[in-house]
Amino acid sequence: MAQNTYEHGDDANEDIRPYCYIGQHDSARSETLSDLQYGQVLNAGFSFVTTPVTNEHFRQRVTELASRSISELDKSEIPSCHPDPIVPPLTTEDTSLFPSPTTGGLIAYSSPWLDLCSGNAAVSSISRQVLNLEIAYANFCGVRTIVIPGPRQDSIKAGNHQGVAQYARAIQEALVIGTRLNFVIHLPMYREPGLEEQTDVLSTTVLGENGDRSQPQGEEIDIFSSWDTWHTIRSVCEYDSRLFAAVRMPRMLPGNEVQTRWFSEPVQYLTFGPKSFQTNKAGYPSLTKRHQDMIMTYMRLKIAPYFMLYDVGPEVKAIEEQIEQLAAEEFPTLSQAAQQPKKHNHKTIELNRYASYLRYVESQQQPVSALEQATLTNFQDWLQSPLQPLSDNLESVTYEVFEGDPVKYNQYELAIGKALADWSHQRKPTSSPTGAVVIAVAGSGRGPLVTRALRASENTGVPVQVWAVEKNPNAYVYLLRQNQMVWGGRVTVVKTDMRAWKGPIVGGTADQPEHGQVDILVSELLGSFGDNELSPECLDGIQHVLAKPHGISIPESYTAHLSPISTPRLHADISRRSPMDPNAFETPWVVRLFQLDFVAQRVPSHERFQQAWEFVHPLPQSTMDRIEARRSGGVVGGGGGSMAGGVGANDHNSRHCHLTFVCRDRGVIHGLAGYFESVLYRPHASNKELVELSTLPDAIDKKSKDMISWFPIFFPLKQPLYFPPDSELEVSMWRQTDDTKVWYEWTVEAFMWVSEAQRVKVGASEMCSSRQVACLM
Amino acid sequence: MAQNTYEHGDDANEDIRPYCYIGQHDSARSETLSDLQYGQVLNAGFSFVTTPVTNEHFRQRVTELASRSISELDKSEIPSCHPDPIVPPLTTEDTSLFPSPTTGGLIAYSSPWLDLCSGNAAVSSISRQVLNLEIAYANFCGVRTIVIPGPRQDSIKAGNHQGVAQYARAIQEALVIGTRLNFVIHLPMYREPGLEEQTDVLSTTVLGENGDRSQPQGEEIDIFSSWDTWHTIRSVCEYDSRLFAAVRMPRMLPGNEVQTRWFSEPVQYLTFGPKSFQTNKAGYPSLTKRHQDMIMTYMRLKIAPYFMLYDVGPEVKAIEEQIEQLAAEEFPTLSQAAQQPKKHNHKTIELNRYASYLRYVESQQQPVSALEQATLTNFQDWLQSPLQPLSDNLESVTYEVFEGDPVKYNQYELAIGKALADWSHQRKPTSSPTGAVVIAVAGSGRGPLVTRALRASENTGVPVQVWAVEKNPNAYVYLLRQNQMVWGGRVTVVKTDMRAWKGPIVGGTADQPEHGQVDILVSELLGSFGDNELSPECLDGIQHVLAKPHGISIPESYTAHLSPISTPRLHADISRRSPMDPNAFETPWVVRLFQLDFVAQRVPSHERFQQAWEFVHPLPQSTMDRIEARRSGGVVGGGGGSMAGGVGANDHNSRHCHLTFVCRDRGVIHGLAGYFESVLYRPHASNKELVELSTLPDAIDKKSKDMISWFPIFFPLKQPLYFPPDSELEVSMWRQTDDTKVWYEWTVEAFMWVSEAQRVKVGASEMCSSRQVACLM
Repeated sequence: MAQNTYEHGDDANEDIRPYCYIGQHDSARSETLSDLQYGQVLNAGFSFVTTPVTNEHFRQRVTELASRSISELDKSEIPSCHPDPIVPPLTTEDTSLFPSPTTGGLIAYSSPWLDLCSGNAAVSSISRQVLNLEIAYANFCGVRTIVIPGPRQDSIKAGNHQGVAQYARAIQEALVIGTRLNFVIHLPMYREPGLEEQTDVLSTTVLGENGDRSQPQGEEIDIFSSWDTWHTIRSVCEYDSRLFAAVRMPRMLPGNEVQTRWFSEPVQYLTFGPKSFQTNKAGYPSLTKRHQDMIMTYMRLKIAPYFMLYDVGPEVKAIEEQIEQLAAEEFPTLSQAAQQPKKHNHKTIELNRYASYLRYVESQQQPVSALEQATLTNFQDWLQSPLQPLSDNLESVTYEVFEGDPVKYNQYELAIGKALADWSHQRKPTSSPTGAVVIAVAGSGRGPLVTRALRASENTGVPVQVWAVEKNPNAYVYLLRQNQMVWGGRVTVVKTDMRAWKGPIVGGTADQPEHGQVDILVSELLGSFGDNELSPECLDGIQHVLAKPHGISIPESYTAHLSPISTPRLHADISRRSPMDPNAFETPWVVRLFQLDFVAQRVPSHERFQQAWEFVHPLPQSTMDRIEARRSGGVVGGGGGSMAGGVGANDHNSRHCHLTFVCRDRGVIHGLAGYFESVLYRPHASNKELVELSTLPDAIDKKSKDMISWFPIFFPLKQPLYFPPDSELEVSMWRQTDDTKVWYEWTVEAFMWVSEAQRVKVGASEMCSSRQVACLM
Repeated sequence: MAQNTYEHGDDANEDIRPYCYIGQHDSARSETLSDLQYGQVLNAGFSFVTTPVTNEHFRQRVTELASRSISELDKSEIPSCHPDPIVPPLTTEDTSLFPSPTTGGLIAYSSPWLDLCSGNAAVSSISRQVLNLEIAYANFCGVRTIVIPGPRQDSIKAGNHQGVAQYARAIQEALVIGTRLNFVIHLPMYREPGLEEQTDVLSTTVLGENGDRSQPQGEEIDIFSSWDTWHTIRSVCEYDSRLFAAVRMPRMLPGNEVQTRWFSEPVQYLTFGPKSFQTNKAGYPSLTKRHQDMIMTYMRLKIAPYFMLYDVGPEVKAIEEQIEQLAAEEFPTLSQAAQQPKKHNHKTIELNRYASYLRYVESQQQPVSALEQATLTNFQDWLQSPLQPLSDNLESVTYEVFEGDPVKYNQYELAIGKALADWSHQRKPTSSPTGAVVIAVAGSGRGPLVTRALRASENTGVPVQVWAVEKNPNAYVYLLRQNQMVWGGRVTVVKTDMRAWKGPIVGGTADQPEHGQVDILVSELLGSFGDNELSPECLDGIQHVLAKPHGISIPESYTAHLSPISTPRLHADISRRSPMDPNAFETPWVVRLFQLDFVAQRVPSHERFQQAWEFVHPLPQSTMDRIEARRSGGVVGGGGGSMAGGVGANDHNSRHCHLTFVCRDRGVIHGLAGYFESVLYRPHASNKELVELSTLPDAIDKKSKDMISWFPIFFPLKQPLYFPPDSELEVSMWRQTDDTKVWYEWTVEAFMWVSEAQRVKVGASEMCSSRQVACLM
């Protein structure tokens, strides 16, 4: 397909590529489009269009007011008591925006000549008043979104430090005034010196200030300063759910660290101006490959940003003429035109080369798989409370979801197969007099691991006896039926909590059965953080049935891993829940983390993902003896216990870690992302590959590609923790336990390197604890 | 008085010098004192004594347990799954502390050989268990306070960064276990290398670790590291009201910045060991003048810390022998001895040279004045909601409190006198046909300013006509009576809101009176922050009665001032209120700030106290005209208004400021302290002194010494804001107004200088607002 035609094909997958909404903004536009003009712009291939709230007439009135006020102020005896001028109310001469059926589809764009950051009190007061007038009026008219230009670089430079705080406060106030509006702050992706918007603002007009438009001399570009401005604004506005960013695309994209930072933010629009594009050989506008990749990343979001083309024509007038010409040919009515936009597709594509190019980029996206479309996208950043698998009985459909992941069960089958082969090869004695290897699936659910165990036996030719142990009485019925219908009666199903199971019955009477042991204990008790659904506690509880010394556990071990992340969306979500759910910030949430920024660097000394701790099964016999002694209140136990009051029977499953993460750029974290890895089986021969599972973003493709069974876990911080450049984040985390439950505690401290030898503390989170929502044993 | 006798006199003021409670701690003591021994120590001049919870027998058991466990761990196959040893329960051999009538008077001291910070998991686990056992047992026995040695320098150095977090978490847990105990963390005032306690801890004993006891080579002492440790602990424990510090006195006191930091913290004990003292010429222990000054500062606290002497003898045994000797002479019973402790005073003074010295210091304190004793001390750090003077009617007793401050009224009398003298001297026309200067006291209350105005007239010989304007109908009755009884009918009393007053009646009929004007308008409407009780709004409202162009207002102007402060006590207090009062952190509290630390430096470029804004009266006529136009909805006004919806009639009284404070040392702030200054009268001749009021700590003595009418105002931050060394705190503050009320908004950002040219943001507070508790107009 030739790049310069931008025609996108009609292949079958077209409908499941994410659709791009493209809007149009013209910064010179000073009047609202008429309904006819609006329809024409829609016909020209745009989904939405912006409108100013007030016009040039109003601007002139306000400018005169400001000039008059400032000259009066100069003559004032007591300047501090001189009242700022009051902006008069709007009249019909000041605006062409009125309530109409189409208003809801318009995006308001507040006057770009306002200067909310101005150090001049009259200018900033007038700017704030005009903004409030425009917001109140747009809200009244039924507009649903207003875009507000961000603080101008020249306003917040030149020693005017309070500028951003002043701007942020004005937005906070605006949120109270425009109760039904969404607010979108228009900011550059990063501030390129000399490439700021050149609109004349009030301060320039009335004060004769020149701003700071000079090209700075070799000044280093601070690529995070625009993000930092946004962070200040939304922090002051307390992560309000009606506050968004619009990010202006530069022609030169900055490094990935800036892109991922913005990716994690609530970006409503990606905006493209004439300076965003380059020209390809055929003379058409185009974007670099990096721009395209970035756009495609954004388009994978459940709620993807819209595109807004600004100041890249065609002018409404040009569209108008074009359409008139078409109309003269075909005489369509406006409503016909609206219903059949495709009819003019060819013509409008000619008109909108920039929009067409974005459509071309849209067509280049990878098709969305059915799985991604149906499931994964919906789960993006969607908070789920962790299961209480020991105290709740799951429903069939929940099991069905788990069973839907072939990757995980393939790994289990591989692990069981290798274990059986090793067992046979090493001629280890089995627990069955028949010589069959005794396998117990602890917590069988609906039986997927039973199926895999039987299949592994068939594939390896090693005979097995399979026991399915399940506490859920409803799943038990299902297992019995599976055994009749699918497994050919080869499985013995036992309904019991695994911790109470005495092992396979090998003889004796019905009243006094004799119990044997298990050679391979298979379980799938792992949670998103490995141990968070009490796999260690459950496997300890059933270990007594495992044959000594040869019995093995699949999984053999698992490790928990952490990384600090920036995720404004989740922070806002949890904040909204916390009035109803006082434990919202203390809950480790299971969530398909997607719209996030990993703030930690990968550096030689410190990884981005670091291991917190490990659990290994089975436990050594000496440990088991010790636990038993404590549990029974023998001579050794009964007194202390790490959590006072208990006997400490589960103390061996407590853990703690202290990890240091390196952050080169400044940023903010909202919590810790948790993952796990597990060694299902460690083959006897050391040169053979481990059979593993991993949910770690940097290991999953290698160890268990496409596995979707587990979403990560998220440990939130109540207060976002800001850190300067060259920081280290020190994470302390504990897995705590008493005799009845397990919970986590976590805290983060931020340090900054101020010289090669000196590191100073710059902040710390509170001590967080999930004790109130602990997992019950 | 010879310093080496330490006898304190029996002068009349002795009883109103703050009393020092002196306790005794012996770190070698391993058993609880018997009741007899306890009584003997009390007799020896001490108010309290410490007790260990467990003894040497227990220590040996635990040490053996730890050693055994560590050697087993070395042999363990899977160290991560090796359970930490469980400390066995206490037996009667492990402790000599039992519930008894005297237990409540004992201070428990937890085992100093515990090492909660240890990087060795077994050691830290055992330490935590022992601590929990000791706390639970002390709590059971009825002990009310337990002292816990702080993290040891050698434990938290040597790369063991998590040490303090781990320690803090253990204390957090301890607070849950010891529900009725107060917890006191024993820390040095600053960490002097090589001067740490030399107790052997568990890690030394069982791991053979040597600690880091070497004298560092020219290492710079970090004088805030001990405070920082405390700050981490109490932050993790969320400023729990049962958590205190005990501060160990060094022989060399550090700079004032460290002293004031600790002064602001909840210090339960000042502890003095053998190294805290020096020896004077007579061979007696003594403290430097700086130590004495510091002690005297602490003793001025409403709840002053107790003193604890440790390891400075006499040993209990010595006391015992002494007492036995006395007993042999006199045969007193224990109860007799307890009732008549003075009887043994002379003897015990011989025994306790250190305690005697502290008694001497006690006697050297300045006596407490009656005013300080009765009023000021009680108001220390006591939060009061600001008045709503316009919507509430005050009670007589409240006026009486205000009237109790002669300094303020003397200044007013001085101001009125100078104004009258100037008026007469300049031969300005008066508003009265009689030639008398017309004075109106706006908001007369019970009339103190009326009295002063009359007296000023008498003193200067300038005749006056006095009008007393008061809206409170109850105070009005009092004024009428005062006029009959005291003022000889010379005053005209008017009951009206000053904003509705039409001015003095100079003729006309009762139905249609003719109104004249006022020459001098006197008012006392200032609040703790100057304008916070709406003085600007009230004076605007009465300005129309003021004669033009000569009329003057007393006060002529006032300014608001700010300084960021560390005040853990108030933060804890407000935190405790916030569940009941959701606006607790949004309220600007009136409070006699006392136990605080001013974190901002006085540097040439930036003051510690900085002016926020100013108000001047009367307003220029042009401003008044403008306000009137807005209020009446004329052509100019009616539309915008800075806060949407209003007409903006009070916009001229909105203000904002942006101030930069410099902090050399690291620290934390909990809010902003607010003060005011006012020029009551500016004499006509420019070489004459202004008549002023000031509540600024660095100006009050010069401008209005001993004035007690106003306590400062405190603007809290919800989250304490930590800042590293070489920081700048940028404060943005707004006085906001709509047509019906006035409120403040404030936010603080912290920046750090990382090089001479580069300053980075390290943190920021939220945007705070008192809108929910705004002052109604």
